[in-house]
Amino acid sequence: MHLAKPYLLFIGDAHDELAAKTAIGVLDWCPDDCVGQFKLPGCVPDLGIQSLTMVEAANSGAKTVLIGVAVRGGTIPDSWTPHLVEALNHGMSIGNGLHTTLDSIPEIREAAKTSQGQLHEIRKPSGTMRVASGLSRSGRRLLTVGTDCSVGKMYTSLAIAREMQARHLDADFRATGQTGIFIEGSGVPVDAVVADFISGSVEDLCPAADDNHWDLIEGQGSLHHPSFAGVSLGLLHGAQPDSLVLCHEPTRTHMRGLPDRPLPSLEQAIAINLENALTVQDEVRFTGISVNTKNLSESESKRCLASLEDTHQLPCVDPFRTGVGAIVDNLI
Amino acid sequence: MHLAKPYLLFIGDAHDELAAKTAIGVLDWCPDDCVGQFKLPGCVPDLGIQSLTMVEAANSGAKTVLIGVAVRGGTIPDSWTPHLVEALNHGMSIGNGLHTTLDSIPEIREAAKTSQGQLHEIRKPSGTMRVASGLSRSGRRLLTVGTDCSVGKMYTSLAIAREMQARHLDADFRATGQTGIFIEGSGVPVDAVVADFISGSVEDLCPAADDNHWDLIEGQGSLHHPSFAGVSLGLLHGAQPDSLVLCHEPTRTHMRGLPDRPLPSLEQAIAINLENALTVQDEVRFTGISVNTKNLSESESKRCLASLEDTHQLPCVDPFRTGVGAIVDNLI
Repeated sequence: MHLAKPYLLFIGDAHDELAAKTAIGVLDWCPDDCVGQFKLPGCVPDLGIQSLTMVEAANSGAKTVLIGVAVRGGTIPDSWTPHLVEALNHGMSIGNGLHTTLDSIPEIREAAKTSQGQLHEIRKPSGTMRVASGLSRSGRRLLTVGTDCSVGKMYTSLAIAREMQARHLDADFRATGQTGIFIEGSGVPVDAVVADFISGSVEDLCPAADDNHWDLIEGQGSLHHPSFAGVSLGLLHGAQPDSLVLCHEPTRTHMRGLPDRPLPSLEQAIAINLENALTVQDEVRFTGISVNTKNLSESESKRCLASLEDTHQLPCVDPFRTGVGAIVDNLI
Repeated sequence: MHLAKPYLLFIGDAHDELAAKTAIGVLDWCPDDCVGQFKLPGCVPDLGIQSLTMVEAANSGAKTVLIGVAVRGGTIPDSWTPHLVEALNHGMSIGNGLHTTLDSIPEIREAAKTSQGQLHEIRKPSGTMRVASGLSRSGRRLLTVGTDCSVGKMYTSLAIAREMQARHLDADFRATGQTGIFIEGSGVPVDAVVADFISGSVEDLCPAADDNHWDLIEGQGSLHHPSFAGVSLGLLHGAQPDSLVLCHEPTRTHMRGLPDRPLPSLEQAIAINLENALTVQDEVRFTGISVNTKNLSESESKRCLASLEDTHQLPCVDPFRTGVGAIVDNLI
């Protein structure tokens, strides 16, 4: 899956910021790759960049229109169709992570036939899929794992990749989810792969590399989340990580979406990830803990990080508040 | 996925018994559901039941032609097409577990349009898929797990289901792979499900039931097999088992297909399965060990089972040699 940059961020008629969080994430991490936003009447959030028509976006050099908005039910509203057709008619591609595929809409399918632009369906993995070989491979790899879903795994992997690149280390971010793929322009939508091929698709995402090259792999789900743990374990095995970073949200009281399931302790999350990772990588270790403390005050955040650091004897950071330098120090 | 019985077992031009192992498995477990076999010129194995033409099979009441033969590359040879078309023309359905889908072959697709018979693609899960809820549910469930792939998980689950049914206990076999689905006539091909839906598809396969009802669920892969562990963990969580039975092949020296990866010890396999199962089921326990001792002599087999029983303090059986009665005794 490869998307051509720069992007036009399409947020349609998003009702609030949360609906536009994919676009916001892309803009946060690669503002230089975003030529502008495209809004329809009724759109509430504003990304704070210039609003462009499709013609203006094409003239500004935009190569791909990213659908950066979540829609109830994952369907593409009829009101979007003429604008997406116009994008294709001006030679731009479209990147779509909604459940409804672009080519299921006749007008869009027809326009794509004569356009230089392509339809990229993020939920439909492309390319040949294969069962994992499980063979040891060269290169270094770090995977973020979580006590739960949505605790900052993508953010942490990206932050570590950027920190390493800033230190002139040889490092690549490897995306496994929609927003990460939009940011990087490539990746594997691992939760959309056929079950037999989860680990194989991740082996292909981060193949053998130079001994001093690092892949910073975006984690998904949690081994403790009963809805998604199969994906998390396939990803863990396919990643064959040297290093793990545990991501955590300290105010979370239960597994996301499951009020009856308490969060595991950090000790439990560390233990189960290490035990499962040992199947593919003898030398694996945790090199840090990344805590999303946005729901804590500055002083609470400091106390939380210090306490976890004391308990686990690992660098504990909030990527947003403290940066991830301490984890990179420990890594190299 | 529901297949109408009885079956005609199609083994085409199979070169050896191994190629026909799906048909042999179906015949082993449900001989009364098989009206005959269908062989093409050059077919080496013989199932030991009557050979029928498509007309004879239809006249004998066959409802579904099962493609019970493995083919290199998973493609359907041209030489099969007229016979499968004939099957459809006589109103029979076709059950196919090969990678090539039946409806990708124009003659078969066309014949299906006017036939009462249906095309059942075992590798293409049907029905609506959903993410697992992870909610606790009623009923009792036993899942077979393995130190490796292909160590007798289907065989053991089926044997326990049959033993329980013979004791007039309320028990159902729940199939998760091609041969199991053919035997039961229904099931979920769990390794062909989109990764996000592994556990959800298994929750639907063995839903909430009476407190005294047992589902005997066919395991897949192994938590220690780096090619398939994601499937195994999704299945474990979706199954939400009360009881686990560990399946093992004592002469196996490395993980199937991976000469560099040693087998886990039985202790390791028990520990990692219990630890991961605890995420969804507090009361889970191992109730037995099922050993495939076909590569051992009678006396070696006895010594092996006695030694494992001594070490693990669990009933240890070879379903083929000793039956699974000791495990059922422990279960109830």
